[in-house]
Amino acid sequence: MSTTEDEYAKYGYGRGQRIGFGQKPAILVIDFQKAFVDPEYPTGGRPLILSAVKATAGLLREARRRGIPVIQTVVGCSESKRDNPHWKVAICHELILGSDGCQVVEELRDPSDVVLPKRVPSIFFGTPLATTLVRQGVDTTIVTGCNTSGCIRATVIDSFSYGFRTIVPAECVGDMEEAPHWANLTDVDRRYADVIPLSEVMDYINPLQYAA
Amino acid sequence: MSTTEDEYAKYGYGRGQRIGFGQKPAILVIDFQKAFVDPEYPTGGRPLILSAVKATAGLLREARRRGIPVIQTVVGCSESKRDNPHWKVAICHELILGSDGCQVVEELRDPSDVVLPKRVPSIFFGTPLATTLVRQGVDTTIVTGCNTSGCIRATVIDSFSYGFRTIVPAECVGDMEEAPHWANLTDVDRRYADVIPLSEVMDYINPLQYAA
Amino acid sequence: MSTTEDEYAKYGYGRGQRIGFGQKPAILVIDFQKAFVDPEYPTGGRPLILSAVKATAGLLREARRRGIPVIQTVVGCSESKRDNPHWKVAICHELILGSDGCQVVEELRDPSDVVLPKRVPSIFFGTPLATTLVRQGVDTTIVTGCNTSGCIRATVIDSFSYGFRTIVPAECVGDMEEAPHWANLTDVDRRYADVIPLSEVMDYINPLQYAA
Amino acid sequence: MSTTEDEYAKYGYGRGQRIGFGQKPAILVIDFQKAFVDPEYPTGGRPLILSAVKATAGLLREARRRGIPVIQTVVGCSESKRDNPHWKVAICHELILGSDGCQVVEELRDPSDVVLPKRVPSIFFGTPLATTLVRQGVDTTIVTGCNTSGCIRATVIDSFSYGFRTIVPAECVGDMEEAPHWANLTDVDRRYADVIPLSEVMDYINPLQYAA
Repeated sequence: MSTTEDEYAKYGYGRGQRIGFGQKPAILVIDFQKAFVDPEYPTGGRPLILSAVKATAGLLREARRRGIPVIQTVVGCSESKRDNPHWKVAICHELILGSDGCQVVEELRDPSDVVLPKRVPSIFFGTPLATTLVRQGVDTTIVTGCNTSGCIRATVIDSFSYGFRTIVPAECVGDMEEAPHWANLTDVDRRYADVIPLSEVMDYINPLQYAA
Repeated sequence: MSTTEDEYAKYGYGRGQRIGFGQKPAILVIDFQKAFVDPEYPTGGRPLILSAVKATAGLLREARRRGIPVIQTVVGCSESKRDNPHWKVAICHELILGSDGCQVVEELRDPSDVVLPKRVPSIFFGTPLATTLVRQGVDTTIVTGCNTSGCIRATVIDSFSYGFRTIVPAECVGDMEEAPHWANLTDVDRRYADVIPLSEVMDYINPLQYAA
Repeated sequence: MSTTEDEYAKYGYGRGQRIGFGQKPAILVIDFQKAFVDPEYPTGGRPLILSAVKATAGLLREARRRGIPVIQTVVGCSESKRDNPHWKVAICHELILGSDGCQVVEELRDPSDVVLPKRVPSIFFGTPLATTLVRQGVDTTIVTGCNTSGCIRATVIDSFSYGFRTIVPAECVGDMEEAPHWANLTDVDRRYADVIPLSEVMDYINPLQYAA
Repeated sequence: MSTTEDEYAKYGYGRGQRIGFGQKPAILVIDFQKAFVDPEYPTGGRPLILSAVKATAGLLREARRRGIPVIQTVVGCSESKRDNPHWKVAICHELILGSDGCQVVEELRDPSDVVLPKRVPSIFFGTPLATTLVRQGVDTTIVTGCNTSGCIRATVIDSFSYGFRTIVPAECVGDMEEAPHWANLTDVDRRYADVIPLSEVMDYINPLQYAA
């Protein structure tokens, strides 16, 4: 992801730097749930997201074979309105955790994955994710899912803030729309994360092997 | 802030809704520190930010007269490199907490304000802010500062995720550049926060009065 | 709960002070699950806990009639050992979240209650509880459950640290053993919480009424 | 630390188990500040604490020579009463962060140490500690300081909850009083942490060497 030459680049934001991979990765899969993927849902069937699901399926297959932890999340609401944050998104009030729209899509599911449901944008907020990562000695998160301009952005910020090396394989994240997708990738690439081609992530995980 | 008519609007993101103000606000002032404001600094002197400082100065004057809590933050690094997250931003490695570039600009300082330094984008992360807000019964945060596409975005997400009503007076936030400024305001306005004119915030706080 | 006259009292710990109740309470019910209550379980059937369940049942009945939020939790483990903290407690490795031992006991269940499962001692850690409380304007938590020397202690510390007024009705908390029960009540009463008779809590909630 | 034979031991709490050391330790030093150590302060000069300071001084000397991170904290209050949690401890309202009573005692200070002030019991709560530990790949915390029945207890719970291996060298923690000291060590040793002799910690760190 090359950052456009702008004020930010001038002042040393992200120019050519790389954070780089660490010793032990985990794959985070954000909100690849029926409501955002399956074309039967009004918010589903969007091209960037469908293609990100496909790319992520390949990544997860390799990751699981190598014993790399895969942690998924879905977003939704508690039935009790009083428990949810002040979403301005109609769909978030309709998506009740546990309902069909909050199921991980079939092509990405695996019994070995951990699924941590959430009611907020970031998979870190209000979930035991930090514990799971510390417990397994993870120092690098590979962030996939949707929407780039929503829950991906929030997850990248938190992953960075906890001190993890944060990597976004560009093909594995998607958004309902092109413009916010690219704008958010630019924002995070110049500050918090390496936005790189999926092939580089594959090369990195290729030689890794962990006990299940 | 009217959301452009796009895929998001079609699916019920932010269309005409308002979260609205609650019972007790606090003003959060993010990174209006010399390094990002003062033209003597290479990253300072940017027009959107200078004008946001001016607008915020007026808001703070009124807020303090009414006993509304004002909590400021500045961003910077620990001298020990090993303590900081993996910033890709050169300036963040140079800005040591406590140094001159990490001082709140003079026109916004007041002895009654709380200042909570941070090393990460969000004022909530790794600081006692949540405690301060709960302790004072705050249910509404008014977010000001810079950069819209960096620490403002992160702060808005966390404020929303904690369950606060989150309000962004558009004139009181700034960015080094126009494009990411507006893109991020659109992103958050359709999901997490009300991006509204400063005059509406002034009308809201006008009748409020709290004991110091 | 009168603090014994000791070094702590001499130095101003908890002597006769009260934090007092606030404007809006929530009841937290910690780990009153089959494994710790039901005598069929090896860790169940302990006298202090059985009597605490009975006292709490009465409190919850009144709370629900008044629309006071009741948030329950149960403790357990993820099936994947690598996700759990380093428990030294054999039972915690056997108690898988979702299994029978992790169900709230029948006499305390109600469809209107929120249940937030956890893998750690405190109901606040790695759960959306803070959001739920902020969102509803809660300023006072009433802590019930077991064990006083384990998850109650941890929950009281976090509730205090977030800035809530923290109240422990003595009859509503229990422990496998007498000595750690009283020692921990003394520890928290002199620092973080008001340990008081259940009757005082009943008097406080009696006049309250919230919309469901 | 042998757990007494009681109900807890019967049910598999801590019986003979050890969590054990991991790959990379950090030393946490909790509230060894003038107000709790220096006999000139009314709360200072307590025997268990004075002897814990001495033992910790030796541990820190070795740790620093080996490049093991040392993170200290002090407890105190913000001058603005409205920012602090509801302490029932008189001294906590008098101890203003930055004042003399909130300085780490001289024999434990070193320019290479990180000091993260706090207003609450646990060094993890409202501070950037989790980031510091993740960033450095720490998987083991060695907890020292005072009081065992206050901030040590809270820090051990959080360290455990984040997934760290938590070790308490018994000689390096102290309390104003004997009874709560031992009661709290028993509580945590059977659940969350290894309470072991300092000599075992010294043996563990002896062969370690990290770049500064």
